[in-house]
Amino acid sequence: MSNPINNTREVKSDLEIAQAAQMQHISKIAAKLNISEDELELYGKYKAKLPLHLIDDSKVNANNLVLVTALTPTPAGEGKTTISIGLTEGLNKIGKQATAVLREPSLGPVFGIKGGAAGGGHAQVVPMEDINLHFTGDFSAIEKANNLLAALIDNNIQSKARSLNIDPRTVIWKRVIDMNDRTLRDIVIGLGGTPNGIPRQDGFNITAASEIMAILCMSTDIADLKRRLGNIFIGFTFDKKPVYARELNAEGAMALLLKDAIKPNLVQTLEGNPAIIHGGPFANIAQGTNTIIATKMGLSLSDYVVTEAGFGADLGAEKFLNIKCVAGGLKPKAMVIVATIRALRHHGGAPANELNTPSCDRVRKGFENLAKHIENAQKFGLNPVVSINNFISDTEEEVVLLQSLCAELGVKAVPTKAWAMGGDGAMSLAQAVVEEVESNNNNFKQLYDHNLGVKEKIETIAREIYGADGVDFSKQALADIKKIESLELDKLPICMAKTQKSFSDNEKLIGRPKGFTVTVREFEIAAGAGFIIPILGKMMRMPGLPAVPASEGMDIDENGVITGLS
Amino acid sequence: MSNPINNTREVKSDLEIAQAAQMQHISKIAAKLNISEDELELYGKYKAKLPLHLIDDSKVNANNLVLVTALTPTPAGEGKTTISIGLTEGLNKIGKQATAVLREPSLGPVFGIKGGAAGGGHAQVVPMEDINLHFTGDFSAIEKANNLLAALIDNNIQSKARSLNIDPRTVIWKRVIDMNDRTLRDIVIGLGGTPNGIPRQDGFNITAASEIMAILCMSTDIADLKRRLGNIFIGFTFDKKPVYARELNAEGAMALLLKDAIKPNLVQTLEGNPAIIHGGPFANIAQGTNTIIATKMGLSLSDYVVTEAGFGADLGAEKFLNIKCVAGGLKPKAMVIVATIRALRHHGGAPANELNTPSCDRVRKGFENLAKHIENAQKFGLNPVVSINNFISDTEEEVVLLQSLCAELGVKAVPTKAWAMGGDGAMSLAQAVVEEVESNNNNFKQLYDHNLGVKEKIETIAREIYGADGVDFSKQALADIKKIESLELDKLPICMAKTQKSFSDNEKLIGRPKGFTVTVREFEIAAGAGFIIPILGKMMRMPGLPAVPASEGMDIDENGVITGLS
Repeated sequence: MSNPINNTREVKSDLEIAQAAQMQHISKIAAKLNISEDELELYGKYKAKLPLHLIDDSKVNANNLVLVTALTPTPAGEGKTTISIGLTEGLNKIGKQATAVLREPSLGPVFGIKGGAAGGGHAQVVPMEDINLHFTGDFSAIEKANNLLAALIDNNIQSKARSLNIDPRTVIWKRVIDMNDRTLRDIVIGLGGTPNGIPRQDGFNITAASEIMAILCMSTDIADLKRRLGNIFIGFTFDKKPVYARELNAEGAMALLLKDAIKPNLVQTLEGNPAIIHGGPFANIAQGTNTIIATKMGLSLSDYVVTEAGFGADLGAEKFLNIKCVAGGLKPKAMVIVATIRALRHHGGAPANELNTPSCDRVRKGFENLAKHIENAQKFGLNPVVSINNFISDTEEEVVLLQSLCAELGVKAVPTKAWAMGGDGAMSLAQAVVEEVESNNNNFKQLYDHNLGVKEKIETIAREIYGADGVDFSKQALADIKKIESLELDKLPICMAKTQKSFSDNEKLIGRPKGFTVTVREFEIAAGAGFIIPILGKMMRMPGLPAVPASEGMDIDENGVITGLS
Repeated sequence: MSNPINNTREVKSDLEIAQAAQMQHISKIAAKLNISEDELELYGKYKAKLPLHLIDDSKVNANNLVLVTALTPTPAGEGKTTISIGLTEGLNKIGKQATAVLREPSLGPVFGIKGGAAGGGHAQVVPMEDINLHFTGDFSAIEKANNLLAALIDNNIQSKARSLNIDPRTVIWKRVIDMNDRTLRDIVIGLGGTPNGIPRQDGFNITAASEIMAILCMSTDIADLKRRLGNIFIGFTFDKKPVYARELNAEGAMALLLKDAIKPNLVQTLEGNPAIIHGGPFANIAQGTNTIIATKMGLSLSDYVVTEAGFGADLGAEKFLNIKCVAGGLKPKAMVIVATIRALRHHGGAPANELNTPSCDRVRKGFENLAKHIENAQKFGLNPVVSINNFISDTEEEVVLLQSLCAELGVKAVPTKAWAMGGDGAMSLAQAVVEEVESNNNNFKQLYDHNLGVKEKIETIAREIYGADGVDFSKQALADIKKIESLELDKLPICMAKTQKSFSDNEKLIGRPKGFTVTVREFEIAAGAGFIIPILGKMMRMPGLPAVPASEGMDIDENGVITGLS
């Protein structure tokens, strides 16, 4: 998480703050959720996996699910994870029993530019080092399940004995690795002669972009996991019949590899409140939220669950509400939209070097973006609370202006200082969220019926959420729709793959663009995860490393003390 | 582990036996080693990592290290792991406090033909499923450290900003994956244009074949680990200067990824005795034994440590004694050579379909092979005990013959029924081992001085251990020796890469071949692990899957019950 305080005074790094924390044994955190130590599968003293039988469906919608999302973000992000953790601390401070339910960070980007993803400042989950590195092995298990299927596919292509007659040119299943490694994006495999298989073009995605990750996050139990794994669409035979993972008898062994990964991970916040961290699918080409199992686990164990959805609300929240909530039978009771004055200045036209320069004019203009996100929340039956993630460059005038603009839409905007102060900085936000929940004014409804046609579903999202005039479909996209219909997958929900930088598919259209259309170039199929993915731009599935990778500054000493993680 | 009982009566599978075991909480096992629960890093209830500070150098050579090795094996293997576990049970049964210290199985082969590697029958380590799958994540961490270095290399080749001027054609560092995936043996990476890096030929090895695995097993602490990681030789610059991992500032982040993997894993045997399982390097191209840290940990905590070295004694034991014991300052007090009547029949000329046919003539003839291994042990100052791993097809006459042949060499040969009976079947073996240890007749000495020249070291091994008349060096090998000398790596010990099927480099020469020479075709350099590898044949570093992969029979049900692992 980037540092919201500017450089005029010295501040501790996230790692230093995390390392200074006095962690409690995880059994103490579990006790707050009435989980006995015997139920825990410990991973050291500060991490534990939770057994699935603790999920109690009768409690899931009796308790309160709070979704944290954001306005259209700047490249640095607006601090959703930090606010989610801070809000959890704040709720506990005002006497509500609350648990944060969040995504697991990806390992690859830790060594690149981005750094980890366990919150920031005084609103973090700990042990930060472990969460950002291998954690409890979930990503690694997903990687193995993904790559077992890949090996089985190429093994079937190689072995004439029990050939499924797979056409290697049609295989869409890629291998994955949790590493930023650009040279693996586009490769040729199977070289070197007969013993080494049939040569074909292939590539590696980063593990978080694997459909297995999306499947794990969409599954409700082991049987559902196996069903979804078996449904993975691999490609076609030479006589153009679709091939699924179940035809390779792959789903049993893949589920076996995921036997522990399916169990949610319990850790703690800096203030010793429970945090469940589980699953981490890409937000640009998948649903981008933690597992359904983790959300239901949190709701089974605590009065309030705070969760987040990746990128801006047009992407993350839309998918959370139309895909995850529908599949999991979840009904959020409140929504928080994180906004920063910096991002409003950006949407108001501030160039990159003036994001820290106060300007009420730009905030007023930039508010158009936030207003559209607020309007969208209301279309889902939710009246959001705006959390103003405070930066030191914010002026009183700008904050008051933002509050009055929100008030005109019937929405509270609450300054939040979770990064600097932890729960103390988020008590007002917590209070506002509780008031929304207790008002009973939030009645979640999905935006579209999954049984509509593919085009109709996409058009609904584009018009209602993005504010587009319509949707153009490329020739390829139209052909893909025919394919999807012939595979009888057209009743699946839509998982939009679009830039997070704009409501439109053109990242330059900041603020609240009008009079535009979006173009679906092509589709991807995630038959196992259970959605179809319209591609509205170039999607990155394998990041690269920068010229000076963050890994160069990392070290561990003889006593196991770590430096250089961020 | 293959089933030593033939198919005339129904027997339980390894998995069924393991699942029927009443496991104790790992803290109870730790208590047997006087480790308090607070010292344990639990991974669930039945696995734990041990902190490095429990190693006590003063105890390492005061206690008793027993090496289990084998005669030249048949393809099915002779049961070293089963005997090692059985011997540990047997030692505890006769009142000695003993711990098994073993290698971790590789995940990839579990889905192929071979099955797992946690012992067999009634001599297993448990929880068998976890040990054979992700266990505590060590292999995965090694994979990540390996692949981070690979990504850093290609990133440096791509980024002109801080280029080390690496010549992509000379890069010897491969990526790894713990999967049997033949199509990744020979690949081309970096395709797709400028953003995707510089195209070059590459390939994946299986994770166990990574030099990182060898390094982890050779390291004595975190500082030593970092030093070895920094010493990894990557390739050359365009102006022919060697490049090492430390020039990429890679060793800190790599060590960070290995912060938990460096800690040994405690599990239990079926009879509730301690087993430390840690590290699993390939035995054909690396040292093939568990970590030095695990062996020292075991010796710090118990009177007897039983450990094994891969393949036959000419490969595994030779490397164990000349590389690992020297680097770790270890002095074995006894050696067990596992023999089967089947393998003696094989070396006596029995064709594959007559291995179960009794024949005293063949046993007598085949004994030549075992006799040479006994002779070799004596060259190391060790008087071995032969463990006759009993199969149902063995006849009394053959066993008595083998015992009398061994007795002529001053060696006890003890029938062992660990597979069928656990510790009860290995008490006589345990007694014989204790007698050898207490006799003080075992005075380990290394075979060659590491400071000898490369050729001289190889010739010593070939003449003394293999019984060769001499060593031929190919033109390539001679050039490689020059390169090794110019890199000042010629004082490193030798890690032979040779077929395990013969004392020679020709797998057809069974028994005790004479009048042969071996040929070093080329060398590999493991500057980080700290040895040079003469290649005497084609070495497999990436297995493939069979036409019907074992994964097809694997499943997990709603209650988490696993079937189909073997």
